[in-house]
Amino acid sequence: MAKNLPLQEITAVQSVILEDDKDLLLILDQTLLPNEKKYLELRKAEDVWDAIYHLKVRGAPAIGIAAAYGIYIEAKKSGTEEYEEFCKDFKKIKNYLASSRPTAVNLFWALDRMEQVIFKHKESSIELIIKALKQEADNIKQEDEKVCESIGEYVLTLLKPEWGLLTHCNAGTIATARYGTALAPIYIGNSRGYNFKVYADETRPLLQGARLTAWELQEAGIDVTLICDNMASIVMKEGKIQAVLVGCDRVAANGDAANKIGTSGVAILAKHYNIPFYVCAPTSTIDMNTKNGDDIKIEQRAGEEITEKWYEKPMAPKSVKVYNPCFDVTDNKLITAIITEKGILYPPFDKSLTELYSNK
Amino acid sequence: MAKNLPLQEITAVQSVILEDDKDLLLILDQTLLPNEKKYLELRKAEDVWDAIYHLKVRGAPAIGIAAAYGIYIEAKKSGTEEYEEFCKDFKKIKNYLASSRPTAVNLFWALDRMEQVIFKHKESSIELIIKALKQEADNIKQEDEKVCESIGEYVLTLLKPEWGLLTHCNAGTIATARYGTALAPIYIGNSRGYNFKVYADETRPLLQGARLTAWELQEAGIDVTLICDNMASIVMKEGKIQAVLVGCDRVAANGDAANKIGTSGVAILAKHYNIPFYVCAPTSTIDMNTKNGDDIKIEQRAGEEITEKWYEKPMAPKSVKVYNPCFDVTDNKLITAIITEKGILYPPFDKSLTELYSNK
Repeated sequence: MAKNLPLQEITAVQSVILEDDKDLLLILDQTLLPNEKKYLELRKAEDVWDAIYHLKVRGAPAIGIAAAYGIYIEAKKSGTEEYEEFCKDFKKIKNYLASSRPTAVNLFWALDRMEQVIFKHKESSIELIIKALKQEADNIKQEDEKVCESIGEYVLTLLKPEWGLLTHCNAGTIATARYGTALAPIYIGNSRGYNFKVYADETRPLLQGARLTAWELQEAGIDVTLICDNMASIVMKEGKIQAVLVGCDRVAANGDAANKIGTSGVAILAKHYNIPFYVCAPTSTIDMNTKNGDDIKIEQRAGEEITEKWYEKPMAPKSVKVYNPCFDVTDNKLITAIITEKGILYPPFDKSLTELYSNK
Repeated sequence: MAKNLPLQEITAVQSVILEDDKDLLLILDQTLLPNEKKYLELRKAEDVWDAIYHLKVRGAPAIGIAAAYGIYIEAKKSGTEEYEEFCKDFKKIKNYLASSRPTAVNLFWALDRMEQVIFKHKESSIELIIKALKQEADNIKQEDEKVCESIGEYVLTLLKPEWGLLTHCNAGTIATARYGTALAPIYIGNSRGYNFKVYADETRPLLQGARLTAWELQEAGIDVTLICDNMASIVMKEGKIQAVLVGCDRVAANGDAANKIGTSGVAILAKHYNIPFYVCAPTSTIDMNTKNGDDIKIEQRAGEEITEKWYEKPMAPKSVKVYNPCFDVTDNKLITAIITEKGILYPPFDKSLTELYSNK
């Protein structure tokens, strides 16, 4: 197993790569992992739409980056010199790409940033506008990389070498531009010889932990052990875990945090075993307009994900009732700290979050 | 959905059935559930060995019953009138059947009981001994049925109509002679119009909850909803669960209870959400020689059960480390009550268990 490799080397796997000279966007097809590491070649908006819609690229930041580059490679192909016509075409592609995953806030945010570039460069030539679009997409990617790196550095100050760390779902390098959120401190730490032992919950029903987290950590030469979700209690009891690190979909103003289904259960176990529970959350996931977790609507998904998906044969009786919420809310009282790119927030989170935004 | 059916009707599915006139033992093949409800016809010791070894029949009581009938149908075929020769043959089959699952205490116990019959009837004809063997196998089955029914009645006094109940793994009718342990109160209650809403954890990696519990409850017309193990927290938080019922593999003298992996996590969640957690344990599972849970060795199983079993393709990277303990120990402090066929035990369990055995 590789040890103490440079950070850039151990996080070499990237989910979205632009090959500008070939007018090509490469997307690591996450639906094929872990059995196949294949980059899809996306050449047009339809390809990008398809990749996002079918979860070939997933993770809010990675989706945003893919959409930004996607609209750029399409804009490049515009034959017109007319600003109005260029704008009209741009808007059309933007709306089209935005329809690929209607609940992904980051997708709209990235596409809006790209559109602002056009408005800002109203007086410029189409050629210059296209250059500026490329720059903006690069910025989105680089900013995300910096956010993740910063979160990683902050979290690392809370961890000690040789610790056992438990993580749930995938908040890793392939869900972001690089480094991930919850996995960033692991990558950074290991590049400095921290030698963490990571336990990855498989994360039913979509198995992001088994398929993605275990895969990317193993690719990076990190000591990772796969467990079923229901084994988190025993590994904690056996003293194998010194901290829990999870990502986050949305943080409410009181610190309640929505994340992949099962996260709240892990937090309760961590509390029981007196293990710190850290939520890694870019400020882009903090929503001060959401008062608390009760205001977060829980998306329900198809029962087939539990009874049939991945299997050779159905694993539950036909027509059985299934409950399949795809995330849950972790009560702020269960969270030891929320770590953003701007620093570490401690309870009471209503106070620390308000302070964070008043200092902005 | 069927409602208020008689108890005998709603627990009609049986795992082991003797067809004495045909010299045949019928075993419900649990490896084919839920896709196929098929009874295997076992005619000789090799068939019975194979059914136990390959988990076609599972659940400690059901295994014991299958072994008892298995040795009976084999003994019936003995052509000899010589007691010594009959004994020798019997011993051979007994040792052979005992090798089918070397860790199943209930298997040895049932076979020993059958052997005692032979010793007791030393002076009788072989014909009478064979009759007595049939009677003893019937007794083993009937006693188990009574134990399960008694546990069910005691647990039922702790529950209220319309309650939501969570269970983990399968401690049901097909794991026993009838009724099950943790599922017995559900069957009995529903025959009296309790109308429970049952949530079944799928129970990774072997999916006994999805494949077996959901199946047998649905067959019985009971309102059952399947969830992933990591959804136990959210259903409790949403107020869907008023009590947790689980079976048990072994209870130590201090009340620590070993059961299917994940049980301890469910117990911690129940404690957090202030939901009673009931362990349904026939006295045969209580081991006063085991001081506490630390003395219970945790069986480790192959990683492939997590990474490959049931799937079309592997769901984790090749050669990833896997930790696969097949049960865990629930701390006695997390248990609201332990229910045996002799009554309900409350904490402190070291005291109530000692009392139970001093009253024997």
